[in-house]
Amino acid sequence: MPRYKITIEYDGTKISGWQRQVNSSSVQQFIEDAIENFSQERVTIHGAGRTDSGVHALAQVAHFDLKKTFPPFVVLRAINYFLRPNRIVITDCVEIEESFHARFSAKKRHYRYMILNRKAESTLDSDRCWHVREELNIEKMQQAANNLIGDHDFTSFRAMRCQALSPLKTIDEIKIYKEEEKIIITIKAKSFLHHMVRNIVGTLVPIGLGKLAVEDMNRIIKAKNRKKAGATAPAHGLYFSKVEYNENTN
Amino acid sequence: MPRYKITIEYDGTKISGWQRQVNSSSVQQFIEDAIENFSQERVTIHGAGRTDSGVHALAQVAHFDLKKTFPPFVVLRAINYFLRPNRIVITDCVEIEESFHARFSAKKRHYRYMILNRKAESTLDSDRCWHVREELNIEKMQQAANNLIGDHDFTSFRAMRCQALSPLKTIDEIKIYKEEEKIIITIKAKSFLHHMVRNIVGTLVPIGLGKLAVEDMNRIIKAKNRKKAGATAPAHGLYFSKVEYNENTN
Repeated sequence: MPRYKITIEYDGTKISGWQRQVNSSSVQQFIEDAIENFSQERVTIHGAGRTDSGVHALAQVAHFDLKKTFPPFVVLRAINYFLRPNRIVITDCVEIEESFHARFSAKKRHYRYMILNRKAESTLDSDRCWHVREELNIEKMQQAANNLIGDHDFTSFRAMRCQALSPLKTIDEIKIYKEEEKIIITIKAKSFLHHMVRNIVGTLVPIGLGKLAVEDMNRIIKAKNRKKAGATAPAHGLYFSKVEYNENTN
Repeated sequence: MPRYKITIEYDGTKISGWQRQVNSSSVQQFIEDAIENFSQERVTIHGAGRTDSGVHALAQVAHFDLKKTFPPFVVLRAINYFLRPNRIVITDCVEIEESFHARFSAKKRHYRYMILNRKAESTLDSDRCWHVREELNIEKMQQAANNLIGDHDFTSFRAMRCQALSPLKTIDEIKIYKEEEKIIITIKAKSFLHHMVRNIVGTLVPIGLGKLAVEDMNRIIKAKNRKKAGATAPAHGLYFSKVEYNENTN
């Protein structure tokens, strides 16, 4: 009974997020349907992270088992064939040992948040970046972000409906840099609470605008109160960009 | 009677190109309507280049005259207000001398062509890049492109319905480089024939794939026959990226 590990890219704009739900068009549903279409097997796929509606993925990872064995390149092509014309694509597929689990074996998850920082309305990047009109000070944002590195209780950045058992998480890295009119925030951790990246970005932006002070970040962390942090940044600026596993699991 | 120079960015996906036509939604039409909406004056705007349906612009330039004088920032904001929710935006507006003409004063025009070069289907870049599955050799493409630099009769790269008086043009520069999975081709000239950039790209790609030899480029130029060059590359990979004028005209 072979297990397959797939890497998935998707445009989150017109889909209702990763997770299968009744009466919705989720990435999980589309892929499970595509697998059934080519293999005649109904499977459940397990993803490394549950992205919300509107959130994009550059390299989401998932696994599933089939009864019959197919070469991985056949699995990849067959799923992609049935995924069209949805903006979801399998970019890689390998057969992997049975102990591998896309969610539980993940060592690090990487997210990227894109901001279009200029006065003029967004055109080409409308569904790809959060448009922030006023100039952001990225040095202040980086200083504030540095307070989030390490082990913390992230209750202030946790969505009300988050199902995690504990609010304790460890952020390894946050980098903030500019590319022409865009500001890119990359963030790396073993795992995240629900809305954690968007709530962090939604707090860094008022700091970049001078509406909150750099020093407020520590106060917000210590408050352990969602109401003290900024609003949730829009979904369409967020990209699930990479998942790291042990080397022997690719 | 003030003259205004505007810089325009647009997503060409759902518009029928730059030029006003009967029963179509062109950039020119949308902007002229927006100007009328705020100023009550019906004007004709003159663009630096006529982009086709599907072609994007990062910095198209146009000019127009108004009878009444408004501060440029008011013109910019007012046009943008009435342009919404179209994916067209004025990114800059200045008042300029009457001798300035967006089309005739242009010294250099820059285009950029984006190719997504990978096996997997396109998702996030579907309307932004030409998807070419087989690996392109950009060194060969650059070698072939170098033959196009300078003064040539570009009949082989000229659309049938091109209205230019002469097929003689001068290309100043073609650069081809890679950014992760994307290949970017930038091209600079005083002016171009209709479809010239897309026909050049449509010839460079078979050279990059090894279907045509680098040496074929000279033969194709000398043939002065549209049928000898490659097919027209898709519109949605093309960006009108910059127009240069004399310094005193911004």
